[in-house]
Amino acid sequence: MQMHPNKDTQLCMSLSARPGNFGLRFHNHLYEQLGLNFYYKAFSSQDLPGAIGGIRALGVRGCGVSMPFKEAAIALVDELDASVQAIDSLNTIVNTNGHLKAYNTDYIAVEQLLKTHAVPKDSTFALRGSGGMAKAVASALLDGGYANGVIVARNEAAGRRLAQNLGYEWQADLGGLRPRMLVNVTPIGMTGGPEADALAFEADAIDKAETVFDVVAIPAETPLIVRGRAKGKRVITGLEVIAIQALEQFVLYTGVRPTQAQFEKAVAFARS
Amino acid sequence: MQMHPNKDTQLCMSLSARPGNFGLRFHNHLYEQLGLNFYYKAFSSQDLPGAIGGIRALGVRGCGVSMPFKEAAIALVDELDASVQAIDSLNTIVNTNGHLKAYNTDYIAVEQLLKTHAVPKDSTFALRGSGGMAKAVASALLDGGYANGVIVARNEAAGRRLAQNLGYEWQADLGGLRPRMLVNVTPIGMTGGPEADALAFEADAIDKAETVFDVVAIPAETPLIVRGRAKGKRVITGLEVIAIQALEQFVLYTGVRPTQAQFEKAVAFARS
Repeated sequence: MQMHPNKDTQLCMSLSARPGNFGLRFHNHLYEQLGLNFYYKAFSSQDLPGAIGGIRALGVRGCGVSMPFKEAAIALVDELDASVQAIDSLNTIVNTNGHLKAYNTDYIAVEQLLKTHAVPKDSTFALRGSGGMAKAVASALLDGGYANGVIVARNEAAGRRLAQNLGYEWQADLGGLRPRMLVNVTPIGMTGGPEADALAFEADAIDKAETVFDVVAIPAETPLIVRGRAKGKRVITGLEVIAIQALEQFVLYTGVRPTQAQFEKAVAFARS
Repeated sequence: MQMHPNKDTQLCMSLSARPGNFGLRFHNHLYEQLGLNFYYKAFSSQDLPGAIGGIRALGVRGCGVSMPFKEAAIALVDELDASVQAIDSLNTIVNTNGHLKAYNTDYIAVEQLLKTHAVPKDSTFALRGSGGMAKAVASALLDGGYANGVIVARNEAAGRRLAQNLGYEWQADLGGLRPRMLVNVTPIGMTGGPEADALAFEADAIDKAETVFDVVAIPAETPLIVRGRAKGKRVITGLEVIAIQALEQFVLYTGVRPTQAQFEKAVAFARS
């Protein structure tokens, strides 16, 4: 991407057990479009302290952090943004002259999307899931003023804990509940997964909802999203989440905010 | 350089107090020409253990090591090539699945150049300098069979030590000596230095020598080299040293040896 790397080129990176291509294609595309002397590299590692130490020692500007490092990395940084404090999970580290500040741009992206899609704050909701991303989404809902929610999770211990920590109810399944917003934060509907063709919520619940929000990004059009669209619902996709969280990382690393057109082109390029 | 970085792109890097552009331009140019999925990044650091730890933790494939880390890094790697054992100084680390093996491609380059330029082994020589690079060059001379040499160094302690360790003589200055080969391993003649316009050896000694070898690479045509060429001497330049040492690093990192034409194009690109 960078046609002329030189000694002043700044490195940004991702750190995960299994790196993907989306982030590095998104960031490198925008570096090139905006003429920024940056390069983005995806790393995997089995040594988190060594990797974070390397970020410090080598002056890596920014690091996107994915599974399974989002919680353990917290002890290794110097400062936590409110987005991390809310959920005890980071996905972004910004290195400013050796001072590492952590952010959670997943949380930030969900907060933004609820606003830009103008989801009414009095919407009742059911959120399905109880893992790290479920915590981020549920916390963004709570902090966004969505007070009336149910956590739906087959894992009772994790589901109850998440619900209680945020003051929501827990249910093992949706049952007869027909909330105004349905939020899927499980792998149901994900390409390549065992439930790729399944609806994350039963059809009748989708049909009776106003808003359908799926965090699954691959495909962007999950069975849940497809049905929601077909029924004219307000729809928020996982692609929007990963794109906006990447955009906010980009802004944190470079200090530059791309135009909406540049952002959309970068998303299209990163997916291609 | 890399038009399509992806998650499988391998990183090579340099580590020094003050990074330059030569290495990264040389390596990135060849990656592109040869279609190798690598990227080369120059780093500075003040934390050598943290940087080497980062190389391990992130799986960085190779690292060129410059001042002031060439000696201290030895304790941080797993295996030393003979080129490092000869001089207690490394300039290259190759990471194979977490096993770090150190090389000194400066030493390897000098050994090669003495052969390719067919410098007679019975040549008497004077080598001026007593620092780390002087040690590499003098050791390559000794191991190459050049037994009859004098170390010329104003720094008596360092000069004597280097000479005695290798079985050479030491002199504070050249005096009346007129050896068949003159080797400069001081900054005399270097662009931007206090003695940029000076000859590293007196004119009469140059005129009476057969071979003139200058390790200064910027400019490639130092006053010593210019006079040597003008007088029809066999000439070996510092540019040849840095180009060949970079080439040998490239081969160690990628397992691919460029053609002579590709190598020369990369050197020309790296200097431009």
